[in-house]
Amino acid sequence: MVFPEYLHFSTSPDRTLIEVTEKLSPDLVAILVDEHTKERCFSNLNIPPVQLIEISSGEKNKTFTTCEKIWEQMTELGMSRKSLLINLGGGVIGDMGGFVASTFKRGIQFINIPTTLLSMVDASIGGKLGIDFQGLKNHIGLFSDPAAVIISPQFLQTLPREELKSGFAEVLKHALIADLDYWETVKQIDLPNANWDEIIKKSIVIKAAVVSNDPYENGKRKILNFGHSFGHAIETHFLETEQPLSHGEAVAVGMVLEAHISFEKKLLPEHKLKEIEEVIRQYFDLPDLPNLEVLLPLIRQDKKNKNNALNFSLLNGIGDCKYDVEVDLHSLTSALHYYKKIR
Amino acid sequence: MVFPEYLHFSTSPDRTLIEVTEKLSPDLVAILVDEHTKERCFSNLNIPPVQLIEISSGEKNKTFTTCEKIWEQMTELGMSRKSLLINLGGGVIGDMGGFVASTFKRGIQFINIPTTLLSMVDASIGGKLGIDFQGLKNHIGLFSDPAAVIISPQFLQTLPREELKSGFAEVLKHALIADLDYWETVKQIDLPNANWDEIIKKSIVIKAAVVSNDPYENGKRKILNFGHSFGHAIETHFLETEQPLSHGEAVAVGMVLEAHISFEKKLLPEHKLKEIEEVIRQYFDLPDLPNLEVLLPLIRQDKKNKNNALNFSLLNGIGDCKYDVEVDLHSLTSALHYYKKIR
Repeated sequence: MVFPEYLHFSTSPDRTLIEVTEKLSPDLVAILVDEHTKERCFSNLNIPPVQLIEISSGEKNKTFTTCEKIWEQMTELGMSRKSLLINLGGGVIGDMGGFVASTFKRGIQFINIPTTLLSMVDASIGGKLGIDFQGLKNHIGLFSDPAAVIISPQFLQTLPREELKSGFAEVLKHALIADLDYWETVKQIDLPNANWDEIIKKSIVIKAAVVSNDPYENGKRKILNFGHSFGHAIETHFLETEQPLSHGEAVAVGMVLEAHISFEKKLLPEHKLKEIEEVIRQYFDLPDLPNLEVLLPLIRQDKKNKNNALNFSLLNGIGDCKYDVEVDLHSLTSALHYYKKIR
Repeated sequence: MVFPEYLHFSTSPDRTLIEVTEKLSPDLVAILVDEHTKERCFSNLNIPPVQLIEISSGEKNKTFTTCEKIWEQMTELGMSRKSLLINLGGGVIGDMGGFVASTFKRGIQFINIPTTLLSMVDASIGGKLGIDFQGLKNHIGLFSDPAAVIISPQFLQTLPREELKSGFAEVLKHALIADLDYWETVKQIDLPNANWDEIIKKSIVIKAAVVSNDPYENGKRKILNFGHSFGHAIETHFLETEQPLSHGEAVAVGMVLEAHISFEKKLLPEHKLKEIEEVIRQYFDLPDLPNLEVLLPLIRQDKKNKNNALNFSLLNGIGDCKYDVEVDLHSLTSALHYYKKIR
């Protein structure tokens, strides 16, 4: 397995950024940051002066209002179709910055420098860009590859444990859907002292292999969505509350629920369901969930659905995953019932 | 020259639409109209029931606010990634409907049925989609091809003469930049009685040939922008006034101005400049223009510019066009000066 060409692992992100930028020879460079990455990451980058565009951090700002502010600044800076936008941050910055760049004057080049574990293992490849709309996750967006992605695990050193956990849910997912051996490794990792370099590479290899065969998610790529039918709905629901869940926390809960549906569909034996549940519980709290009436309208908006039916990606044992499995309301109810019992 | 595969000339747009839709087998179909195309075109289409999404006509509505309304209705209708949006209308409906479809859930399929001469000869091919932003034309957008474009000149029969004129400016442009013989034909056409079928096909052949060699406008495709550096700026300026110009009127004026720059750069002999001016005057009024100080900031936002320089596409004689010609302020001033003298 070869990594996508645009992917650069680097222990010196500033040097790599300078090299990559020189090759693109843009007429103007701007860098998109939030208050955290400005302080924590940008200030440590030793690069020539660039224009800075700052937005407020957080999923709740992944909206058109923020896009409009960015486009406004890009316009004021006089950015042309030959200019370059560098997105320095986590998933919100990468997804939204990529979307903004890909639609500014019908598309300019952009470089993503993911600064969280989640964005390194997940958003770094696959070209999915977008923003939330009316509370629906990534409801508006497109597919477009960055000119480069620069991955430097050193950014993780200053990352809060909660942020590490959020990314780790996707690592667990990669193992569950594609690699039993990897699962045996990741199920007993000491988060703060993990060998992230190796884990990130392994996760990217898994994701890249899936994506390269189905870039626009017409088929197999849907397995990367295991845990996300419930996960996105739960994340969306909690976004509006006082205590929002991180993407990883929501996906972790989603994986427990969807593992139960896999079990109920006789795709996953009971002892494997228990094992998944225990591993997830080891890293994540299991919050109280609202009823199905609240979650269902959100699940209905999932991009995998078609013909008014709910389509899930379900585990076919550990290390394998089936997609486009039609799921009925009874399965959802009984998964939620099980979840309430075990938490 | 072969037409793009997705292009269907049809004397029976309803039958063609039904055939094309059946092949795409969407799970839900919605059709985007404005008050004019609903009345004038949709009501004459004999097709199975579809969901109707109606917006207000006009360039001033080609904004995010309208996009949000469309996305909202698409979401409420329960449209999935397997659904289809049909855009029935002129350039605004086609450009904005295509943009909305291409970004809804990261992109669903869409069919364009252009109903104006302008959208038949211009927007129908090339995949340029977008909306205006802060008064800047097509400032936000992307490239994406429709699943099908259905062209039926019969829609022109009920089109106001002003609308015919607006499209005819692009026809003149196609001749000027690429085909001297075609210029000899189109320079003496009786608009209401023209053989539109033939003209549309010829214009599309010219545009398709240019676009197929440079789909993302890195080079040669820029020649299609002759008349548009000034034209877009003028259109944008008048959009805010009581008497907005149509796209074609603005481009007609832009072609006079840019023909003068071509002459000044010794690319076009004086008698050819005069000829162009006379032909355009035959079809279009030449309105009073604001000074360069007003137009320059708008011209600076043109997508062909780079490195802070103004790049124009200029006629190299009639029937040929050069792109990426750097133009200085003196040339712009003297073109405006000339224009004020001759109008």
